[in-house]
Amino acid sequence: MQRYFIPETNITDNQVTIEGEDVKHISRVMRMTTGDHIICCSEEGRSALCRITQIESEFVLAVPEQWLDEKKKLPVHVTIVQGMPKGDKLETVIQKGTELGADTFLPFKAERSVVKWDQQKSSKKLQRLKKIAKEAAEQSHRTTIPSIEEPYSITSLIERSKSYEHKLIAYEEEAKAGESAALVQTLHEANVNDRFMIVFGPEGGLSDKEVGLLKEAGFTSCGLGPRILRTETAAMYVLAAISYHFELN
Amino acid sequence: MQRYFIPETNITDNQVTIEGEDVKHISRVMRMTTGDHIICCSEEGRSALCRITQIESEFVLAVPEQWLDEKKKLPVHVTIVQGMPKGDKLETVIQKGTELGADTFLPFKAERSVVKWDQQKSSKKLQRLKKIAKEAAEQSHRTTIPSIEEPYSITSLIERSKSYEHKLIAYEEEAKAGESAALVQTLHEANVNDRFMIVFGPEGGLSDKEVGLLKEAGFTSCGLGPRILRTETAAMYVLAAISYHFELN
Repeated sequence: MQRYFIPETNITDNQVTIEGEDVKHISRVMRMTTGDHIICCSEEGRSALCRITQIESEFVLAVPEQWLDEKKKLPVHVTIVQGMPKGDKLETVIQKGTELGADTFLPFKAERSVVKWDQQKSSKKLQRLKKIAKEAAEQSHRTTIPSIEEPYSITSLIERSKSYEHKLIAYEEEAKAGESAALVQTLHEANVNDRFMIVFGPEGGLSDKEVGLLKEAGFTSCGLGPRILRTETAAMYVLAAISYHFELN
Repeated sequence: MQRYFIPETNITDNQVTIEGEDVKHISRVMRMTTGDHIICCSEEGRSALCRITQIESEFVLAVPEQWLDEKKKLPVHVTIVQGMPKGDKLETVIQKGTELGADTFLPFKAERSVVKWDQQKSSKKLQRLKKIAKEAAEQSHRTTIPSIEEPYSITSLIERSKSYEHKLIAYEEEAKAGESAALVQTLHEANVNDRFMIVFGPEGGLSDKEVGLLKEAGFTSCGLGPRILRTETAAMYVLAAISYHFELN
């Protein structure tokens, strides 16, 4: 069933008001009419089966018929720190990473990131990335949209990492050296609701300096198997491994 | 280090002859000269550190200096059966699936596959897909290139599946129903060198009829966590889970 993310302020126990782009999606794309059902998700992660009661050009009204107890979230919080890659790879990471359950994406201005966002570009880019995350969240039946933040420097990243229980670096050199225990060990030690921050380099990888600073700040570097993964594949590998570890059994 | 896949017939103990597109890659793209080193992989999966001894416009000669004992292969054989998806998604599955260790890709003419390949298109498409697999194998430091075959019908697929020890269907409806044990159980029961065939539907999913026929043929359907994955993400999830299960510890 089609699902829509609705701002908290537009949801009461008796009525949901849908505005903006979703109105067109409901009336024009999905060609729904009153009486049809949708799932509405609040920003806080509640979701309800709703019946559409009114469709206007500027808004759609729906009545919550049943609040749902959906367990769609990964049992741990995962923040993907992605060294800013070329082309549309960041979009791929965010689309697939949303499907695979990531909570937060932090673009990271790595030494070897070729791409730079100026002030103007940054807000447009972020807007586009947030739209991709919202669509992927709807498509994958999540009840929450992951947050995407402005690009981080190494300093602000390390400051931010202080509130995380588990800090990992997906480091190509560790894969080459055959490291194969750190990810498994970290997942085995983790508890439900723990927070993970995982750093992925851009195409050229992280610099020795960056790895040094992150390790000083308590990060552990881990290998992801013997094959060398593209930067956007590495994030998917880790998220799938986390889901396999915690959600399948 | 740059690696190239070389036909078995062009490799002797004392000399490797590189022909075709790789010649241009070595001389023009990488701007290598005699004395530079590359890794040459044979079709059978042997690899050697080689020193370039001669660069001509039509061929490059190199001397194997050291045969390498590289363990880049997944310890089990994985055949990805991909219900033919729209657009360039099959290319994504093959590129990422190669990085993640798949052995074989079988495009599958599923009931809900919108895309059809005619005879002429088929050979061009396959050529392009094989090139993507070769490049992804080189980039991910594999010692073998996965094979990609002509599209299969459900009947030929079931016939082919008889030689596999483990047969799985990644089935959206199982994910929705909360199935979470089949993949883990299958991996726990598997032995090194076992053969897995895993079927993924196209965008619209597999039909009930297809799932029925596959189950009759010994396939087990498995869920991949509570979120609904796009078809191309599902294959990556399973391959990452297999690598996590067998290669990390």
